[in-house]
Amino acid sequence: MEEAPVDLFQNYNLVAIVAFAITGVLAAAPRTQSVVALIILGVVSAVGGGTMRDIVLGTKVFWIADFTYIWLAVAGSLAGFLAIELFKRWKSLLLYLDALGAALFAVESINKSVGLGANPGVGVMMGLITAIGGGVLRDLLVDRPTLLVQRDLYATPIVLGSLAYVALLYFGIDRDVSAAIAIVLIFGIRSAAIHWNLVVPDWLHVPESPVKDPSS
Amino acid sequence: MEEAPVDLFQNYNLVAIVAFAITGVLAAAPRTQSVVALIILGVVSAVGGGTMRDIVLGTKVFWIADFTYIWLAVAGSLAGFLAIELFKRWKSLLLYLDALGAALFAVESINKSVGLGANPGVGVMMGLITAIGGGVLRDLLVDRPTLLVQRDLYATPIVLGSLAYVALLYFGIDRDVSAAIAIVLIFGIRSAAIHWNLVVPDWLHVPESPVKDPSS
Amino acid sequence: MEEAPVDLFQNYNLVAIVAFAITGVLAAAPRTQSVVALIILGVVSAVGGGTMRDIVLGTKVFWIADFTYIWLAVAGSLAGFLAIELFKRWKSLLLYLDALGAALFAVESINKSVGLGANPGVGVMMGLITAIGGGVLRDLLVDRPTLLVQRDLYATPIVLGSLAYVALLYFGIDRDVSAAIAIVLIFGIRSAAIHWNLVVPDWLHVPESPVKDPSS
Repeated sequence: MEEAPVDLFQNYNLVAIVAFAITGVLAAAPRTQSVVALIILGVVSAVGGGTMRDIVLGTKVFWIADFTYIWLAVAGSLAGFLAIELFKRWKSLLLYLDALGAALFAVESINKSVGLGANPGVGVMMGLITAIGGGVLRDLLVDRPTLLVQRDLYATPIVLGSLAYVALLYFGIDRDVSAAIAIVLIFGIRSAAIHWNLVVPDWLHVPESPVKDPSS
Repeated sequence: MEEAPVDLFQNYNLVAIVAFAITGVLAAAPRTQSVVALIILGVVSAVGGGTMRDIVLGTKVFWIADFTYIWLAVAGSLAGFLAIELFKRWKSLLLYLDALGAALFAVESINKSVGLGANPGVGVMMGLITAIGGGVLRDLLVDRPTLLVQRDLYATPIVLGSLAYVALLYFGIDRDVSAAIAIVLIFGIRSAAIHWNLVVPDWLHVPESPVKDPSS
Repeated sequence: MEEAPVDLFQNYNLVAIVAFAITGVLAAAPRTQSVVALIILGVVSAVGGGTMRDIVLGTKVFWIADFTYIWLAVAGSLAGFLAIELFKRWKSLLLYLDALGAALFAVESINKSVGLGANPGVGVMMGLITAIGGGVLRDLLVDRPTLLVQRDLYATPIVLGSLAYVALLYFGIDRDVSAAIAIVLIFGIRSAAIHWNLVVPDWLHVPESPVKDPSS
């Protein structure tokens, strides 16, 4: 029973990487010309967030430790490219897959950070970096506005679920139970946002352009 | 007296982080929809440059060593958000605060780099990365042109002040005196640029589009 | 004879850094206002890719180990700026210089990665990161579409040549011979693409916008 969670979370990670490679390719495709560039962008979407996490944590980058992750990301990207027409009809399925990937990445990264001795706050930061880093990097590379400027609820569920996860761990709740709650929370809020097309509530909405250009 | 400069520079750093969080939020607000995204962008503005510096130097990222910096950045970002209407009227004050933050970050980073055994040239690079890195990252994330493409004097005072600082240290001038001169120099040139709306002088101005696209 | 390849590859690296500084300045100039910003962008173009490689590999950043690289990049950037009018007429020469730089960077990075004990797949990733990283970073900073969204053959020759190089090494071919073949391959395909204005062939071309926005 001691070993199980590790395997479980590694599997989580694998699912998240394939999911992000597929959605990454689909998001990048409208702005990309070449299949080689598209595969690169799928791989960046899939492993970019985790790479940033490992660099900031100062630990060995996960796909240098085990290159299988890159093969998985390449396979997911190729699958995404080959099945573009198919996925076109499954667009909402993809959004849910992406939400699941983000939830799994966040929980897995908090586990990795805390396992390396980082404090829970650092864990939350790493969960967020891993879950949104790859997508943000891909958007920058294809000149799309990043998710940080969209009124969509994307970062919010990840922050809430990550905070809940470290709080549950702090109160001594079993790690697997806490992880399951956090994943359900992140995936649930994000899914609700997708399903009901929820946006940032007005009281949390940033008021109209307060200043044009404060730092330049 | 041996300990004083360290404390002094740590305080400098704290002031710079709060200043950058506030100006970061104000700069990002016109393009951001959600408060969660806004706080993230404020934190990125405040700690992004120092994070890049520590990663390039290969040393432990400062906010992993001491998470207080993140709390400060979050507090500064929240203050910036809550007081948006107030800061609107204080726009020029903010610009000076930002200039002060950049000066403090540059000097503190040169101290950190040289303290880690890096040569003075590396120190100047780190001063520049720390002082402009967070703002550049924030601008990329909200799809604003970065300060490197504006005709505003922003990077120039930092480069000049950083070069002056390592030169003064090289000639054996006392570290506190050298730091004070460098801070006054960076803050002074930048403030003059803000006050008189100075831009790049014509003889340093890049001539009209020499080539359209040399590398593609 | 044992030492020769090392010197040779270091010379390769120096040529590549100067080439990328010059083409970086030329690419950035139409969008930059200040000479200081232009030099910064030339330096980023020249050393950005190698910096990313070293950070991902977890090894000491090459220009911190030897600051001469930065002086070279600054000198190349200044030369590029001073000779803008001249280079205007030599635009196609610059493209070939850039192609040569990319080929040298890719081979040198694979050598460095494999020398540090990384597997050949990691070597290919590092070759790609080093060869395109600096240019991609520069394009992001000046708000130009990155090479990953252009129909130009840029990443493809690097990936092919890098794969060929690790395959030749795997089959026990002499390192200098393999390197020469890889450099000729990358430079040759890229040069052919420049000369005949080759773009991504249709069967490798990404079909029209399959989905608008799969992940947001």
